[in-house]
Amino acid sequence: MDILNDEYYMNLALELARKAQGQTGINPVVGCVIVREGRIVGVGTHLKRGTGHAEVHALRMAGEEAEGATAYVTLEPCSHYGKTPPCCERLIEAKVRRVVVAAQDPNPLVAGRGIARLREEGIDVTVGLLGEQSTLMNEKFNKYITTKLPFVTLKTASTLDGKIASRTGDSRWVTGAAAREQVHTLRHQHEGIMVGIGTVLADDPQLTTRASVDAIDPVRIIVDSRLRLPLEARVVTDRSARTVVLAAESADPDKRRALEAAGVEVVICGSGGQVDLPEAMKKLGEMEIGSILLEGGGKLNGAMLEAGLIDKIVLYYAAKIIGGQEAPGTFTFEGFERMADAVRLERVSVEMAGEDICVTGYPANRKQ
Amino acid sequence: MDILNDEYYMNLALELARKAQGQTGINPVVGCVIVREGRIVGVGTHLKRGTGHAEVHALRMAGEEAEGATAYVTLEPCSHYGKTPPCCERLIEAKVRRVVVAAQDPNPLVAGRGIARLREEGIDVTVGLLGEQSTLMNEKFNKYITTKLPFVTLKTASTLDGKIASRTGDSRWVTGAAAREQVHTLRHQHEGIMVGIGTVLADDPQLTTRASVDAIDPVRIIVDSRLRLPLEARVVTDRSARTVVLAAESADPDKRRALEAAGVEVVICGSGGQVDLPEAMKKLGEMEIGSILLEGGGKLNGAMLEAGLIDKIVLYYAAKIIGGQEAPGTFTFEGFERMADAVRLERVSVEMAGEDICVTGYPANRKQ
Repeated sequence: MDILNDEYYMNLALELARKAQGQTGINPVVGCVIVREGRIVGVGTHLKRGTGHAEVHALRMAGEEAEGATAYVTLEPCSHYGKTPPCCERLIEAKVRRVVVAAQDPNPLVAGRGIARLREEGIDVTVGLLGEQSTLMNEKFNKYITTKLPFVTLKTASTLDGKIASRTGDSRWVTGAAAREQVHTLRHQHEGIMVGIGTVLADDPQLTTRASVDAIDPVRIIVDSRLRLPLEARVVTDRSARTVVLAAESADPDKRRALEAAGVEVVICGSGGQVDLPEAMKKLGEMEIGSILLEGGGKLNGAMLEAGLIDKIVLYYAAKIIGGQEAPGTFTFEGFERMADAVRLERVSVEMAGEDICVTGYPANRKQ
Repeated sequence: MDILNDEYYMNLALELARKAQGQTGINPVVGCVIVREGRIVGVGTHLKRGTGHAEVHALRMAGEEAEGATAYVTLEPCSHYGKTPPCCERLIEAKVRRVVVAAQDPNPLVAGRGIARLREEGIDVTVGLLGEQSTLMNEKFNKYITTKLPFVTLKTASTLDGKIASRTGDSRWVTGAAAREQVHTLRHQHEGIMVGIGTVLADDPQLTTRASVDAIDPVRIIVDSRLRLPLEARVVTDRSARTVVLAAESADPDKRRALEAAGVEVVICGSGGQVDLPEAMKKLGEMEIGSILLEGGGKLNGAMLEAGLIDKIVLYYAAKIIGGQEAPGTFTFEGFERMADAVRLERVSVEMAGEDICVTGYPANRKQ
């Protein structure tokens, strides 16, 4: 049962923001609800980078009714002139009486200045209401804004014995419809989707977002040190989404030109014969790709995990056992000698996804 | 909040029975609560094979107050003369007015006859209240009484990538204290505990039940085709529990005599050079071992799974990733060629066990 209180309105603001995940690029998602005399008078959510902030939309809807009202905002109102004027000033101009903020903005350009500015003008500011939910919802933004590195979510789908395919390579299908629908939602909510060239050569995937409604396609990122990507691969020929190939310096320049002529962006990462993954993350960050969904295979998953480059892990398990010592696993890397050295996951949660099991956690070895 | 109704009392009867799991041998667990004029007048639970049934204990406590009372019983009262006289007759003699039964007894000697007998005497009988819970609680008994084969529960503990040890064999510790306490509770609740000789040679385990209170040790069952079990192994020298070794016919008769002299029972299963697992289950059933907790390793787990001999699977996952293609997995068998042929689990559930994840299910290929 709902209880009419501050949380009642903040929950709506959070939901407004949550549903916009994936459409704000490297910007955070933010929701705003304005309430006066027991009635909602304005709601807003940030929809797209470079367009109005949540507060602006909500204030516009409220009009003169914003005066003396309470504004519920999921993230501290901005205090700096970015692509739009600072929201603090807009709230002050509109003469709101009270502002309830879920979480402070980790953006070094804001970081408490928005809250201070409001208080300076005598506005009553409450900070921290449902703050964890706001922080969680913006975990991708929070990493990117402070490090300029993309937030990497690894997703795998395996059997209960950790196999992503049978010993003969058959992988249709590991998980069921519900898990697959969730994965396409994850694609919609990340700016990039990353796979190894092995996956492209084996499966020729589209790497687009297929949902029952229109969805956003992330940038397709292929780790392909030696530029083995065929010109007839679907990620090349299907121009519905951008494709970025990460290659080593030693890769064939002719193949590079051919791929570029086909519309593929080739990014050289590091000076060796193999893609330097930390360098790759840095370059992708510079390209303003703030979040990446890593979809394997096992070799790339293992290398990214060992390098401490995975921020979050979403593991789907189909409720079945396939066996086969040689059947490919979710993580193909040399592995640790001692059980005590295994990469631990923190903040683990588990739920059913249709008939499959979904385990979520944060690798303890992630580099912040 | 509790609601005073039939379920209120049946839940107590179920809880009385549930807590006796492991101490009734091949008998079912049964609870009974007798209620008259708004008060509990008797409670009982079956404690040990060959001793009084739940109804008998409860009727004794109720004394003359049983007349006109309602008896809640988790399993249909028996109608046959076994090690004790039939409970039906006791309820009739005590002049109870109404009997609420959770589940019919699958024992072919009862199978509805108890209910029919009560009704014959004009007693009002309700059947099926919380029946699923009663059936689940007696799933081991229900298989054994109808097939004379033990109910086999497989338990594994692995990392999220399905490894039971590192590539160097280190396995201390995979899961945490909460999972280990649950496993010792599972041992208490099964009549046998089964491992392969590889596990004994590698770890020299005790295979006893260690809990914070006294507990029952199951019979230790070692699958050891060639009788490689050392006479100085703890399962041989520590006489606190029975040890049964399953061997092939071709095993060395001198070693057999030496083991028998040390107090170990040796059972020959099948005529080949390898233990015939279906034959082994039949022989263990004949020895009145009605339930077995299978604790691997990977080779025995895989062979039992392939043979359709596993009734239930309890998989613990530590929230960590260790890697290593050669690191041993939970199931070591050739594996299926096609993902569609993998062994599916039915009735899957998942919960946290401390910091670990516990997945439970029933293999679809189990032989009933």
